[in-house]
Amino acid sequence: RHRYSKKTEIAHSNNISGKSDSSGASNSGGESSKESSRSSTPVLDTDRTDRLRDKMRRRTESGDHWFSLEFFPPRTASGAVNLISRFDRMGSGGPLFIDVTWHPAGDPGSDKETSSMMIASTAVNYCGLESVLHLTCCNQTKEKITGYLSKAKRLGLKNIMALRGDPIGTDWEEEEGGFNYATDLVKHIRCEFDDYFDICVAGYPTGHPEAQSYDEDLKHLKEKVDAGADFIITQLFFRADTFLKFVRDCRAIGITCPILPGIFPIQGYQSLRQLVKLSKLEVPEEIMRVIEPIKENDAAIRNYGIEHAVGMCRMLLESGEVPGLHFYTLNREVATMEVLRQLGLWIEDPRRPLPWAVSAHPKRKVEDVRPIFWASRPKSYIYRTQDWDDFPNGRWGNSSSPAFGELNDYYLFYLKSKSSKDALLKMWGEELTSEKSVYEVFTSYIMAEPNQAGHKVMCLPWNDEPLAPETNLLKDELAKVNRRGVLTINSQPSINGKPSSDSIVGWGPPGGYVFQKAYLEFFTSSENVTALLQVLKKYEPRVNYHIVNVQGQNTTNAHDMQPNAVTWGIFPGREIVQPTVVDPVSFMYWKDEAFALWIEQWAKLYEDESPSRMIIKYIHDNYFLVNLVDNDFPLDNCLWQVIDDMFELLDVNPLEQPVDGLSLGISFD
Amino acid sequence: RHRYSKKTEIAHSNNISGKSDSSGASNSGGESSKESSRSSTPVLDTDRTDRLRDKMRRRTESGDHWFSLEFFPPRTASGAVNLISRFDRMGSGGPLFIDVTWHPAGDPGSDKETSSMMIASTAVNYCGLESVLHLTCCNQTKEKITGYLSKAKRLGLKNIMALRGDPIGTDWEEEEGGFNYATDLVKHIRCEFDDYFDICVAGYPTGHPEAQSYDEDLKHLKEKVDAGADFIITQLFFRADTFLKFVRDCRAIGITCPILPGIFPIQGYQSLRQLVKLSKLEVPEEIMRVIEPIKENDAAIRNYGIEHAVGMCRMLLESGEVPGLHFYTLNREVATMEVLRQLGLWIEDPRRPLPWAVSAHPKRKVEDVRPIFWASRPKSYIYRTQDWDDFPNGRWGNSSSPAFGELNDYYLFYLKSKSSKDALLKMWGEELTSEKSVYEVFTSYIMAEPNQAGHKVMCLPWNDEPLAPETNLLKDELAKVNRRGVLTINSQPSINGKPSSDSIVGWGPPGGYVFQKAYLEFFTSSENVTALLQVLKKYEPRVNYHIVNVQGQNTTNAHDMQPNAVTWGIFPGREIVQPTVVDPVSFMYWKDEAFALWIEQWAKLYEDESPSRMIIKYIHDNYFLVNLVDNDFPLDNCLWQVIDDMFELLDVNPLEQPVDGLSLGISFD
Repeated sequence: RHRYSKKTEIAHSNNISGKSDSSGASNSGGESSKESSRSSTPVLDTDRTDRLRDKMRRRTESGDHWFSLEFFPPRTASGAVNLISRFDRMGSGGPLFIDVTWHPAGDPGSDKETSSMMIASTAVNYCGLESVLHLTCCNQTKEKITGYLSKAKRLGLKNIMALRGDPIGTDWEEEEGGFNYATDLVKHIRCEFDDYFDICVAGYPTGHPEAQSYDEDLKHLKEKVDAGADFIITQLFFRADTFLKFVRDCRAIGITCPILPGIFPIQGYQSLRQLVKLSKLEVPEEIMRVIEPIKENDAAIRNYGIEHAVGMCRMLLESGEVPGLHFYTLNREVATMEVLRQLGLWIEDPRRPLPWAVSAHPKRKVEDVRPIFWASRPKSYIYRTQDWDDFPNGRWGNSSSPAFGELNDYYLFYLKSKSSKDALLKMWGEELTSEKSVYEVFTSYIMAEPNQAGHKVMCLPWNDEPLAPETNLLKDELAKVNRRGVLTINSQPSINGKPSSDSIVGWGPPGGYVFQKAYLEFFTSSENVTALLQVLKKYEPRVNYHIVNVQGQNTTNAHDMQPNAVTWGIFPGREIVQPTVVDPVSFMYWKDEAFALWIEQWAKLYEDESPSRMIIKYIHDNYFLVNLVDNDFPLDNCLWQVIDDMFELLDVNPLEQPVDGLSLGISFD
Repeated sequence: RHRYSKKTEIAHSNNISGKSDSSGASNSGGESSKESSRSSTPVLDTDRTDRLRDKMRRRTESGDHWFSLEFFPPRTASGAVNLISRFDRMGSGGPLFIDVTWHPAGDPGSDKETSSMMIASTAVNYCGLESVLHLTCCNQTKEKITGYLSKAKRLGLKNIMALRGDPIGTDWEEEEGGFNYATDLVKHIRCEFDDYFDICVAGYPTGHPEAQSYDEDLKHLKEKVDAGADFIITQLFFRADTFLKFVRDCRAIGITCPILPGIFPIQGYQSLRQLVKLSKLEVPEEIMRVIEPIKENDAAIRNYGIEHAVGMCRMLLESGEVPGLHFYTLNREVATMEVLRQLGLWIEDPRRPLPWAVSAHPKRKVEDVRPIFWASRPKSYIYRTQDWDDFPNGRWGNSSSPAFGELNDYYLFYLKSKSSKDALLKMWGEELTSEKSVYEVFTSYIMAEPNQAGHKVMCLPWNDEPLAPETNLLKDELAKVNRRGVLTINSQPSINGKPSSDSIVGWGPPGGYVFQKAYLEFFTSSENVTALLQVLKKYEPRVNYHIVNVQGQNTTNAHDMQPNAVTWGIFPGREIVQPTVVDPVSFMYWKDEAFALWIEQWAKLYEDESPSRMIIKYIHDNYFLVNLVDNDFPLDNCLWQVIDDMFELLDVNPLEQPVDGLSLGISFD
């Protein structure tokens, strides 16, 4: 993203932040990235250490209605990539939690991209969402279940929805000492893991289809709660009264925990029929009367479904019996989001505790500083630091800086580009003829204009998000520098004390002030670097720089161990928070990743030895990655002037051909 | 100190900072204190971890002349108090180091206030001065010497001046296996402590009086250096030529280490005669010719001494052989400071790495955050935290906050008031008749006007420094609130991004910006507190407060574990530094000290059961200690408005008599 897309970008970032990761807040050559570093205070949000049941209790006590969202694991890896993007988007509305169903046929506890376990883990660790993992116990050994729970705990999951699950085959019989009911699973969790997990169980407003009677089923529910469940989510229902009666009946037999209504916005005729068949529910006459006549018109049914759900939810909320609503999304966004918007529960501008989204993993919750370099690739940062044992004092610093994870697994689903190879070739060029072709790709991306082949460039290897279409004052400046081979991949503007509530750049608690130093990061040729180093002498000590090539030849005027804080906030009654730094140590790890993306995402689109591939390879081998910080945040950003000065020097004193900086006697450490 | 004394105070603070403690930067009810807390970055000044010999080498290489100062241990405890104040004042000129002579007859290795060991330790730990401890070995056992060295190391001393010392009695003979020469001591230090200490040895420009010959003495010096000495300080001399010849002779026999000339500004006729007798030096004819005729005129002799020393120093520095000058101060200030000023070596405005002076103890060097409460009592803070084992990441925080030392030893020499009991009684009242008398003492202090008995109030128990005489815009405001019983003891104004080079409020490296939140701390009655709490509701969440009485009944709107940063700085290429915080945990320790000072320093001036004592005791027992932070640092300080509102409320709705806040149903945690 670029400065000129700032408003939209931040709006988008707001959409997906709060609870989601900050891939939407990242940028390329522009003015809005915020990522990484080293800060002073552990934890802005003291709630972050809280358990789900505590959050629920506090929200209930304050009368602040919430919502939660249910998803199921996708069938394919590309489905997983899409679902994660959906987590980011739907996470931005501020769900109290999401839950991921257990899919026994899909190897649910495995490390597959599509497993229930990995999807829930991704939601927690990479999207920063409080998550509940479903678990069914039917036909499972205790060892197997304990193994799943241990793994879930290891992955940072803290909440389990304990279910019996459907027995395989119809002739199911109770097994001596085995898991016969969800109650057994609840007991097992409490027995093996004490109070570690928050446990949710299912409630059936019209009774479980297999139960002997409604009352019998209520007794089973009471047993589940008595065994240690913390709250109940109900099966879907079609009438508010059904749920409200159910709650009254639960209370009457002594069930006191929260009971969340499961809301199913009708989204289509087929999905309704299928669901009804599975759940053995009856669709009320009055609904069928509306739907049958329009069953061929998906849009009409969805609109009706939204209207019906909104009406039912209003009744539920107004009853005073319902602290929050649980939505069966069917992995779709539109209907649920619309219902939530109409109810006023969708948080359009959730307060961001930090400029980047905080992981919901219990260990990473205290993390409050990150390097800026991964601003556009927050999931990659989390992935490469996943083995870090601790973030001392929530800080990440040189002295204690553990190694970054290996640079591999480019196609791990949460690092994967959303675009296909074909789409990428169209955007980045079926055939490249020179370095200039590459400059044009960057320029098209910046300008949000079609490339020469007529395709819009929606992403770059360092920026998976399409550029916002709005024009911006800086668009021409950016296009100019990219056209001349200053290939911008990340930047942020300077900010001198904007209110933390600022809708564009604000973050953190209310009543505070946020600050930034201007930042610019780009690839450029050694010829340009030679001129740049000359120019930078004029900007000492105002501008700090790091300039490195793929071999790691590094020149800098910064302290080799001292991070430079580039985003910080001052809040009432708090220590200073400095969530984003330019850190010299991590820059060398980022450098590997940034250069590797040329090859892995771009060069490999072309055949071995093809000219296109050789061009990208040449850039990879010969260009430098440069970052610049303007330390004088109260003044106007001088970094564009630095680049202009560099071009001016090149224009006045053109070098015959690109010369390696080293051969000019510039000293690289 | 108060806001209206800010300029002078900071000037003074600059005088004594850099290397000294910040007692001069502290204040009372005014607007300038800076102390304590919790910060993000370890160590602003990367040089702080360096050894004396490295600092010396770098200064020599850069051609940046330095000076050092020699002191001897005082004979009395009150002499020690005065010497420490002198350390603070003379430390402000920027000496590279000070050294403290070893006084064998004064129990030099003991814990006495007057011992060489304790004076040197105080210079390092409390005044933040790089210090060299002299040590003489003559007639000492190896065990004894090793014991002294171990203790010195434990106390944070890192440099030893190794001397033989004068044998007791005249018939000294070499002792087999004992310490016969300084060389033996140098060898012993290197043998027992490896390279831990930097070692200095003495050189004699005209040969040691007991040496067989000048050449023989030079050989001994070479042996001392070869045994492991890092640099040489010479005995005093009266002609530049004498020293320069000595240096040439040293170099000729292969002595390559720094040789610092010992400069002795003649300060009086008697002291010169005595010194000449002790050192067996001859005063040159041309000097005696000047001095003899004016020997009754101390001022004239001192002026001549200054002129002579300046002339000699100029010759030495111009020779290019002299990287720095060592001054024999005889524990006096005027002459040496004047020589240094004329030479341009006295640093009038040394850059302060942090708002408060950093201790020179190796362990405490990384400390970069302190509570604001001890702003006026930095030595007390160091004393009470001396047992802390580490300052994790240079940070001092709740989670790792070790206990503060016991509140005792009020009369430890570095906590002792410089004023006598008589002087205090004159300032604070021979007899108090009511609380109002106390208010008047505070008001006189603020106004820098004589009290009713005609004595100027130069200090208060919480502020040992006299108030600067300048008027200030806030003087009337402060006097008004003190007169009405808001007894201010500490404060600072808000600062919104002043350059770090600002001569009044700047600190830290150049090119940065410094910030402050306004702070106000005072004692006041429960009646006032009742109104204040009412008023403070209007200022939520802008103003954070802590209100506590001597029993520890505490009411606050701040997080009970979260410090509030009130001083911070943003610097090029650095993380944020936040050297001063209002910390809720340490406030409870400070509270004990702040209340105890009423009794220990004030009430105890009066007889048991006397009305005066009862009045102070009443205040101690019934008043509250209040601190206020205005979080909105970019706006005008609202804290004075808060106090005005409180008075207004009291005026509109006067309570018949002081009422305990508790009885009004105010909840105290």
